Amino acid sequence: MELALTLAREAGASGEVPVGAVILDAEGRLCAAQANQVESDSDPSAHAELRAMRAAARHCGTKYLSGCTLYVTLEPCPMCAASMVHFKLSRLIFGAYDPKGGGVEHGPRIFEQKKCLHRPDVIGGIRAEESAALLRGFFSRLRAEKGAEKP
Amino acid sequence: MELALTLAREAGASGEVPVGAVILDAEGRLCAAQANQVESDSDPSAHAELRAMRAAARHCGTKYLSGCTLYVTLEPCPMCAASMVHFKLSRLIFGAYDPKGGGVEHGPRIFEQKKCLHRPDVIGGIRAEESAALLRGFFSRLRAEKGAEKP
Repeated sequence: MELALTLAREAGASGEVPVGAVILDAEGRLCAAQANQVESDSDPSAHAELRAMRAAARHCGTKYLSGCTLYVTLEPCPMCAASMVHFKLSRLIFGAYDPKGGGVEHGPRIFEQKKCLHRPDVIGGIRAEESAALLRGFFSRLRAEKGAEKP
Repeated sequence: MELALTLAREAGASGEVPVGAVILDAEGRLCAAQANQVESDSDPSAHAELRAMRAAARHCGTKYLSGCTLYVTLEPCPMCAASMVHFKLSRLIFGAYDPKGGGVEHGPRIFEQKKCLHRPDVIGGIRAEESAALLRGFFSRLRAEKGAEKP
């Protein structure tokens, strides 16, 4: 989670919503380390988790991420949670809970859906305060900048 | 939808689950035409819809797909439906309903979630029988091939 937080911090510094994700395989080897790149890629689906899963599958030369653990600084949104089902990810460990945009412990609670075909083990709230503080800082700077831009 | 069905057919012929997606902008101009490429990309998130939305955003040089209509031969899964929220897609027209894997009229019904921040207009069931027949044919061939492989 330390590396995920570092990635989130760097993303925030470059104008992205600060979220970072890291994937380790069953032996604890690093398979992917990615940050949110929605702005720089101009791609609303370029969330840290989805980018990390794609990168990990490429890195491992496998289609599925069975045995892998994904660490992410924020509760995944419904898109990313649902993609974890497709990737057959084994374990999800996330930082801050996201009551507005989350899709694991909030909203559609993707893994609790009856027809969900694969459910990773989930642990939430790990180093949540550090992750939440990063996000709060980012959005408060953004608001201040937008306020300053007003005539 | 004719083009989406053609793309689906071609995908099926090359061993992919036959699903095709096409995006038109507000003036009816073609922005993207993509098929499911999960097998050839070895990427479980390479669904036709998500690929088409990324391609359309690149093609249009915009981050969001406001004003655009996405035609897809099968009801989108929860991942693709949730990504339509992020892309701010205006209109979704889909073919066959998918009671097992769909996320629009089935499962988490992504656009009906209270906290869903953007809801495209949705029309389902367009040329549904042709799309469903493609999928049925594909899976029955797959089962026959798998049966033939058994010793």
